[in-house]
Amino acid sequence: MTADPIPPTIEWRDGAIRLIDQRALPGTLAFLDVVTVGELCDAILTLAVRGAPVLGVAGAMGVALAAATGEDVQEAAARIVATRPTAVNLAWGVARALAAADPLAEARRLAAKDVENNRRIGAFGAELVPGGARVYTHCNAGALACVGYGTALGVVRAAHERGRRPSCWVGETRPALQGARLTAWELDRLGIPATLVADVMAASLMASHDVDCVIVGADRIAANGDVANKVGTYGLAVLARHHDVPLYVAAPTSTVDLACPTGAGIPIERRTPAEVTAIGVTRIAPDRMAAENRAFDVTPAGLVTAIVTEEGVATAPYGPALATLVAEAHGKAAPGGA
Amino acid sequence: MTADPIPPTIEWRDGAIRLIDQRALPGTLAFLDVVTVGELCDAILTLAVRGAPVLGVAGAMGVALAAATGEDVQEAAARIVATRPTAVNLAWGVARALAAADPLAEARRLAAKDVENNRRIGAFGAELVPGGARVYTHCNAGALACVGYGTALGVVRAAHERGRRPSCWVGETRPALQGARLTAWELDRLGIPATLVADVMAASLMASHDVDCVIVGADRIAANGDVANKVGTYGLAVLARHHDVPLYVAAPTSTVDLACPTGAGIPIERRTPAEVTAIGVTRIAPDRMAAENRAFDVTPAGLVTAIVTEEGVATAPYGPALATLVAEAHGKAAPGGA
Repeated sequence: MTADPIPPTIEWRDGAIRLIDQRALPGTLAFLDVVTVGELCDAILTLAVRGAPVLGVAGAMGVALAAATGEDVQEAAARIVATRPTAVNLAWGVARALAAADPLAEARRLAAKDVENNRRIGAFGAELVPGGARVYTHCNAGALACVGYGTALGVVRAAHERGRRPSCWVGETRPALQGARLTAWELDRLGIPATLVADVMAASLMASHDVDCVIVGADRIAANGDVANKVGTYGLAVLARHHDVPLYVAAPTSTVDLACPTGAGIPIERRTPAEVTAIGVTRIAPDRMAAENRAFDVTPAGLVTAIVTEEGVATAPYGPALATLVAEAHGKAAPGGA
Repeated sequence: MTADPIPPTIEWRDGAIRLIDQRALPGTLAFLDVVTVGELCDAILTLAVRGAPVLGVAGAMGVALAAATGEDVQEAAARIVATRPTAVNLAWGVARALAAADPLAEARRLAAKDVENNRRIGAFGAELVPGGARVYTHCNAGALACVGYGTALGVVRAAHERGRRPSCWVGETRPALQGARLTAWELDRLGIPATLVADVMAASLMASHDVDCVIVGADRIAANGDVANKVGTYGLAVLARHHDVPLYVAAPTSTVDLACPTGAGIPIERRTPAEVTAIGVTRIAPDRMAAENRAFDVTPAGLVTAIVTEEGVATAPYGPALATLVAEAHGKAAPGGA
């Protein structure tokens, strides 16, 4: 097996959390060594590290960092969880580390499990991808959103590894351009054919029958199957349904929040208007311009064709299907589990 | 009446075509004096001047420029028409000037008629806009897309002038950002409340009941009512229908192409991938990244609530309604017409 062309997004190394600094991509592959909880919170807030699955591991490693440096662990945990409200994995990872006798060992276990989970998601998901499929994806649910391999892009990668020759339409994903900057970079490294488009072109591509399926990740999945993900996902889901294109959500069971009955209960983060009125340091709108910046939206379960997890594929009705998959994951995680 | 806060987009002045250089907005209000047909073609190709209605006048003035400078008028006309294939107004304006005894007088007449038409479109359209309406608009169909006043934004402006207190959601309109750069600038100058959003946020705004109607312009309307407009319009139309939000198209009858039976016959311009892989001079994607850049899409007539022209408002079935409105416009234009 050749080395993974994408290094781990996060690692514990010499008492520090080493992150790929995603702000520098696609131009530069740079690493950021985080040695305090404050630095970790900054890295999360500025999107140096982003993506629901890796935020779970970052949260756990943050608790380990607090413990290692003698910070108040409970206070550190609360600060980390408060950075971003939508992705449930962050709170989940923090809680897992807090509950563990050895937070660092638990964080490392979650990191290893992330890659294993994603390979399983890929294996299940690849079965849904027809040969030669032209996959539309939004934002980045790739290796960079995880410790490695990716969820939505993990499905594409697994299909690629199985010789199914998928190709990707990459929606650039304004305002923060995770598609153009991160997904494009990953697919280039992996040698998977990809074409960048402005987000507004998705409907035209579907109308001209150039999209075989849409595959996205998730930041939180409610108990009924409603999916919070990067803003724009809901619009894609409406378009996909209008054009009879299947929409698949790929996410680990740690993204499922059974305590949240429906999408209406998922908090939607609002980010600074400056992300919309400027691109990087280049201002694109008049000085006084107001802007709205909802970072996520909610796709009703009824628009989701299937949810692919490491425990298997859920289809409607999602309530019982997700509850079963989560229980299976818990069963394995518990002492004495399979 | 106070002076218009937005100067004319195009004027004939001292033997030259004076344009607002739209590439410099919103930072700088600069003017470009075009003195050859080659310079005019460059200005059109680089979007220094853009927008279907003003392209009609630019085409007519280009013919006048060729005549005034002794260039081959037929050859100049062909070069101008070839610059951009989708907006039918360009070929229409060129043909009008070619057929006139005095191309310059005809170009000036078309310019004056543009503003008059847009005020009529505004008056008809304002009746469709409820008090306090939150209007979503895409790209720029404002004064800058015309000689003055605007089509889609003319409707908003007319509603504003009538005390209906509309406000606008401005979709930034990647890749060329006409919404963020131009529509935002116009609404700021006009004192109409506006909020910029990334294009992907439209669906979320509709789901949260924050959009009362969508109003857009058009680059070409087929005889059956199919509408070619800036890419992204079709997706908005699907979303609007899904959320029971009306979608209005505002355009002069010169945008209606009765020779084109349906949208399938409208040529869709593809522009350079560099507009997608970079924003201005800032590269946002990896170096080798491929990109698709369809500049327009086609919205089927069935998704259009009404088409507002200077002769009145067309609703489905659009075939007979548009034919009648175009005939009325022709009747007025012909010698002895009303």
